[in-house]
Amino acid sequence: MNVGILITGSEFATGSKQDTNSSIFAKIAFERGLDVAFIHICKDIEEEIEKSVQFALEMCDILIVSGGLGPTFDDVTRQALSKAFNEKLIYDEAWLKYLENEYSLRNVEFTNARKNMALRLLNSKPITNDYGKALGFIYEKNHKVTIVLPGIPQEAKSMLIKAFNELGYTKKIREISLFRTFGLKESDVSSLVKDFGNTFINVSALGVDVYAKESTSASKIEAVLGKYIYAHDESEMEEIVGKLLRQKQLTIATAESSTGGLIVSRIVNVAGSSDYCLGGIVSYSNQAKMNILGVKEQTLKSFGAVSEQTAKEMLLGAKRLFGADIVLADTGIAGPGGGTSEKPVGLHYIGIMVKDNISIYKEIYQAQRNYTRLYISQFALNLVRLALS
Amino acid sequence: MNVGILITGSEFATGSKQDTNSSIFAKIAFERGLDVAFIHICKDIEEEIEKSVQFALEMCDILIVSGGLGPTFDDVTRQALSKAFNEKLIYDEAWLKYLENEYSLRNVEFTNARKNMALRLLNSKPITNDYGKALGFIYEKNHKVTIVLPGIPQEAKSMLIKAFNELGYTKKIREISLFRTFGLKESDVSSLVKDFGNTFINVSALGVDVYAKESTSASKIEAVLGKYIYAHDESEMEEIVGKLLRQKQLTIATAESSTGGLIVSRIVNVAGSSDYCLGGIVSYSNQAKMNILGVKEQTLKSFGAVSEQTAKEMLLGAKRLFGADIVLADTGIAGPGGGTSEKPVGLHYIGIMVKDNISIYKEIYQAQRNYTRLYISQFALNLVRLALS
Repeated sequence: MNVGILITGSEFATGSKQDTNSSIFAKIAFERGLDVAFIHICKDIEEEIEKSVQFALEMCDILIVSGGLGPTFDDVTRQALSKAFNEKLIYDEAWLKYLENEYSLRNVEFTNARKNMALRLLNSKPITNDYGKALGFIYEKNHKVTIVLPGIPQEAKSMLIKAFNELGYTKKIREISLFRTFGLKESDVSSLVKDFGNTFINVSALGVDVYAKESTSASKIEAVLGKYIYAHDESEMEEIVGKLLRQKQLTIATAESSTGGLIVSRIVNVAGSSDYCLGGIVSYSNQAKMNILGVKEQTLKSFGAVSEQTAKEMLLGAKRLFGADIVLADTGIAGPGGGTSEKPVGLHYIGIMVKDNISIYKEIYQAQRNYTRLYISQFALNLVRLALS
Repeated sequence: MNVGILITGSEFATGSKQDTNSSIFAKIAFERGLDVAFIHICKDIEEEIEKSVQFALEMCDILIVSGGLGPTFDDVTRQALSKAFNEKLIYDEAWLKYLENEYSLRNVEFTNARKNMALRLLNSKPITNDYGKALGFIYEKNHKVTIVLPGIPQEAKSMLIKAFNELGYTKKIREISLFRTFGLKESDVSSLVKDFGNTFINVSALGVDVYAKESTSASKIEAVLGKYIYAHDESEMEEIVGKLLRQKQLTIATAESSTGGLIVSRIVNVAGSSDYCLGGIVSYSNQAKMNILGVKEQTLKSFGAVSEQTAKEMLLGAKRLFGADIVLADTGIAGPGGGTSEKPVGLHYIGIMVKDNISIYKEIYQAQRNYTRLYISQFALNLVRLALS
């Protein structure tokens, strides 16, 4: 079965904003054994959507349409579908009641524009929305299935899975194996896995992700990448670290300079992290390093804020303040300014203290400021992973 | 003139990788007064490309085709175009010589596959490539223009500009007006701007962005959105706040709980922020709130960690530690757990202290954990903007 994806949204078609739904949808389809033939993005204009639906259905068996189901004037996807299929729109009574109740609880007027979010094509099956107000639906005509979803990624994703379940594409009959690694260069990973066939690689500040399309090669890839692998699914490093901390009943705190709170913020990204994350100090100024973390003035003078010694004293300061089992610290030059010939932009010292054991790592990473900061936060979190696994 | 964009690449069509060229192209076209009608992404399969070119040309006057001009087996765009237009491929002699020279200088064999990178349609105009080896070209038939570009973003971008210059679309004749707002609901913004025509709206945790395509409506939009507008370009709130702090020579620090370092990390996102950002305390645990920020145990007992009183004491604690001119604090329940009937998930208290003046805002925002945290960080930064402008 061939799948087509149609994204509506003038902001995407005109390049003002990057669409991200299509790749989420494509992945979900792929995992269910469905081939994505194309992605088409058109404007929020009724006739454009109508025309796009018509030609798109000529090129696929299942069409996913996403966007334009909200309450504003440019949400015209329902009307366009109604014309494209020559099918009436009806209110879904159950959803209408649900919306009425939701809005009355919040003392918000239930306007006609808001009621439109309960409209679906006659003879369609509703897909309820667990995260938002717009109803989705599945519509079948001439052996072609159209799945209609809102544009908000979180809503659309879970509704697409519901729709596929409804259509019988429940089981993941094809799995892409994913190996998320940190600590190896792209070229190293590439040469390690290139003989295993049908793999592809994605590189970011978070590391190198290897996707293998054939399960036969998965065990070989596992073997060559070894301890560099931090996840076998789309888990983020902070989730992996969170699980380890929870398993071992350990607490964590940070003392950050260059990363500026990014490390602790990523730890807190994980729901339930209050069980193990005590907090952090962002000592961006030297004054804060001294006053709050107790870094010695002499240390800053003799070695500089970006030094092994400062990183060490930052660790000790955060340990004293939080009493956490594990403490992370970083100090560095994210750039673009602030570098010298001795201490170039990109230079970082990253420290980890596990109980009473301190280790400091020197890392030079030269990229855009916030790319570098993300990389350094990943480096720090990876140290926790390695220490605990 | 209507522009269509056709991206070839199985990795994009199947969602393994995110296409980024289309939005670059769309922007370049838009700035030259050309309307982008659609973006279509298809696989690297000759028949698919051929079919896609044919229907795409029915929907636009100028078609930009990108990808599949390289030397590997899945680079089949030239062949597909040859079939779609029923036009022969010929070697561009000048480019062939250039490539021959390039390869011989590097002692690399000039294979047939590499020679293919000099192929273009008969009757086309070549577009030379300043950053790579694949030749592009412009082809005209039946009053429809097709611009053929490689897939590598840097190469494609500069070649598209060359092609547009060649076609006479040189000057930037139109600019999109952008109004980034925070503090209004999507539906409110929508009803405020809907009469000004040719606008579109984009909503996220960061607020509501309004794009206006006609300069005539821009001043009207400016008037109705007023102080809710935080940027007139793609600047982020932290950049706006950073500029204001720098102008007024003020320093800032944070005390964060629910946002977990996100506010300070966003402030630090801006290059040069060390001039005004002193740092922050992430007091995720109650212990840290008491030990580091000096929040009273009695306050936590009587009012709870998520309360106006705690937010206030967090402000005072950070003020004492950092001595910053402006201090931000937040305490809340990001969810999904931790809510009660009295204090639901989403409840936050956000505090700002400007010199000695304290204000605390109560806000309930119900979304996914990290969407909520991003929203709250934006809310807090917006308080600084409002206080300083």
